[in-house]
Parts: sequence; C-alpha cells; structure tokens
Amino acid sequence: MSELIKKLEWRYATKDFDPTKKVSEADLEEIIEAFRLTPSSFGLEPWKLVIVENPEIREKLQVYSWNQSQITKASHLLVFARVKNIDDNYIDAYFDKSVKITWATREQLSGYENMMKWNFSNMNDDSKSRWARDQVFLALWNVIHFLAQKQIDSCAIWGFDPAKYDEILELDKLGLASVVVLPIWYRSENDKYSSKPKVRFSKDEVVIRK
Amino acid sequence: MSELIKKLEWRYATKDFDPTKKVSEADLEEIIEAFRLTPSSFGLEPWKLVIVENPEIREKLQVYSWNQSQITKASHLLVFARVKNIDDNYIDAYFDKSVKITWATREQLSGYENMMKWNFSNMNDDSKSRWARDQVFLALWNVIHFLAQKQIDSCAIWGFDPAKYDEILELDKLGLASVVVLPIWYRSENDKYSSKPKVRFSKDEVVIRK
Repeated sequence: MSELIKKLEWRYATKDFDPTKKVSEADLEEIIEAFRLTPSSFGLEPWKLVIVENPEIREKLQVYSWNQSQITKASHLLVFARVKNIDDNYIDAYFDKSVKITWATREQLSGYENMMKWNFSNMNDDSKSRWARDQVFLALWNVIHFLAQKQIDSCAIWGFDPAKYDEILELDKLGLASVVVLPIWYRSENDKYSSKPKVRFSKDEVVIRK
Repeated sequence: MSELIKKLEWRYATKDFDPTKKVSEADLEEIIEAFRLTPSSFGLEPWKLVIVENPEIREKLQVYSWNQSQITKASHLLVFARVKNIDDNYIDAYFDKSVKITWATREQLSGYENMMKWNFSNMNDDSKSRWARDQVFLALWNVIHFLAQKQIDSCAIWGFDPAKYDEILELDKLGLASVVVLPIWYRSENDKYSSKPKVRFSKDEVVIRK
C-alpha cells in the first residue's frame, strides 16, 4: 500500500495530545489552501473558515462545548461556518468573480446565471441551510484528509451550541452560522488509544463488484 | 506549497477523458482501502461501495442518469450506497466485530452499546437516512481527495434515479440504497477546461482569524 494509505491508517480520533506542540504558520497556510480548493455545488463556496487561537475566546467557547478540553488545549480551533443567505446578490458576486478569473463573458454565462438564481429563489431557508451544510462537510472532510496526510491530528466536534458560537465569534453579524468545530493538534505519545486497532469492515464485507 | 496542495490544484471537474486508459486493479485496491478507512459516526460504517465495470449494466444505468456519457465511458463507475436499516441487529454485529478486533470485552462496551441502541431506536426512517447519507458523503469526499492525490479524475453525479439504480444493481435486496455516483477515469489531453483557471475566493475573503 502507498504512503497515502499509510497516512490514512495513521489517522485516528486521538484523545490525548501534546500541549507543547503548535501547528506552524506554514502548515496553517496549507490548511487554508486545502480548504480553499474544496469544490462546491455550483462553485458557490457557501463557507468561511474561522481559525481561533485567542485563549479568552476559546475559554468562552468551551462553556458551550460540553466543556471539552480540546477547545482550549488544542493547538488551534477551526470553526467551519456556512453562509446563511444565498440570494441574487451572492450569485451576482460569484459571476463578477468568474468573469474576472476565467475567459468567459457575463453574457456567455447568462443561461447558467438565470438557472442558478431560479434554483435558489425556489429554495426555502431550510433547504438552503441543508445545501450549505452539505458543502461545509465536504470542506471539513477535505481538511481532515489533508491533515492526515500532513500527520496533524484532528477530531471533529458536533457537540456545541452553534448559536452561542455565532455570538461569541461575531459570525451572526457577518451572515454566517457555525456548522462544525475541528480542533487540531499533535498527538501525545502516551495516548493509549494509539495502539488500539481500527474497527472496520473487511474489503469483502464492504465492496460489491459488478 | 507542498505536493499535496499541488495535487488538489490539479483536480478539476474534467469533462473530456481518455477512453483508452483504465484504472488498474492495484489502484482500485487502494481506492477501496481509502474508502474502507473513512471514519464514521459511532464507527457504524453505514455504507457499501459498488464498483461497476460490466458494460451492459452501465448501459442500463445510463438511461436513468440523464444519458450522461461518463456512465458508460468512464474507466469504472463507483456507486456509494447507504445501509437502510440501522437496528439492534446491525449494532450487535458492530460490537461483535469490535470485541474481536480490539482488547475490549462486550461487558466493558455495554454502556456505549445501550446508548447507541437507544439513539437509533428513537430515530425515524428519515433521520436514519439523513444520518447515513452524511456518512456516505464523508466517504465520497475521502475517495475524491485520495483520487486527486493519485491523479485519477472523478466527478460526482447527483443527477440519477436512485430507485432504478437500486433495482438494476440489486441493492434493494441487500437493504441498501444508492446515494451518489462517482465515475473515475483519466482526463483527455484535449479537454479545453483543463486550462480554465479555478474560481475560488481568495484567502482573505474566506478566512477569519481570532
């Protein structure tokens, strides 16, 4: 098996970590790049990545995260947020950007633009939220996979109060809503879970060939 | 930027591909490994990977996929399916497997087992389906990221008739439901989209630091 698979084998939900090791700025730059390069439905990138280092802010967040220690002790806290309002203005900004970056003119893209505007104007807030959450999870997993390849540990947290996070991180003012939290760190050499074998279906149990 | 980021830059939604190139069995083995190593909520792996090569089956599937040519022309067709019924039997099988693989005894795991059974017995079919779909999308993106690192092309397809897929692939008989389709192939050197720059938010537009 290749190095890539070995790195995926290496990854596990670490419980204990080394508080003295920080993720470097150079690695953070790459994590941001991996996040940024995630493809999204219609190319609309309905997301932001919030990187939290500030200890006071993290203490406040911890209270609304079942007091999980990773919130304050991890190297950094990544909060994946979705854009709440996908409307004509948001879609216009997408096409303004596309025209600047690619060879297409706004006229050439008008059919696609109208289809997109029609599509989102027919979605209620619930469907828009569901759609944006799906995209954010793609970005989340893209980053988790990348971190495994870089041998940086992470373990996604769903158990937190999104409304309180939005308030503390001032995301509500920006039209954003937090979706999932990913503390990142380096594992401790003492983590007893590191020697625990992975529980997975065997190839024969999980693959059907036709 | 590292090789890992360069490979993510390399990935794009290819439209045109080389019909003479097949993904090797050795690479398929690794794709299966990447799929298999995806972590899942509660570790329940509510998924199967269906790999379709058979041309007759693919012709039948194409009819129910808006006649998209990738269905028959790609090297292989990966269909990501979810397990429909997460019940006490399914959870029992998980714990039987865990006990075999890890050092834990069934008694030690009984609190976790009861919590899981309680959790799923309180979910209706819709919530179970939504939960399993979320897991399948993690596996999907894990595989897409892995394919980018291996420089194998892929482009996920949502536009297909899941009920017909389940019938043609005989997934319904196995308690499975297809969720998303991923044709894999090698890009054509003539694909005019290959030179199209990626449209993405800049780092400053997409990252908030606290």
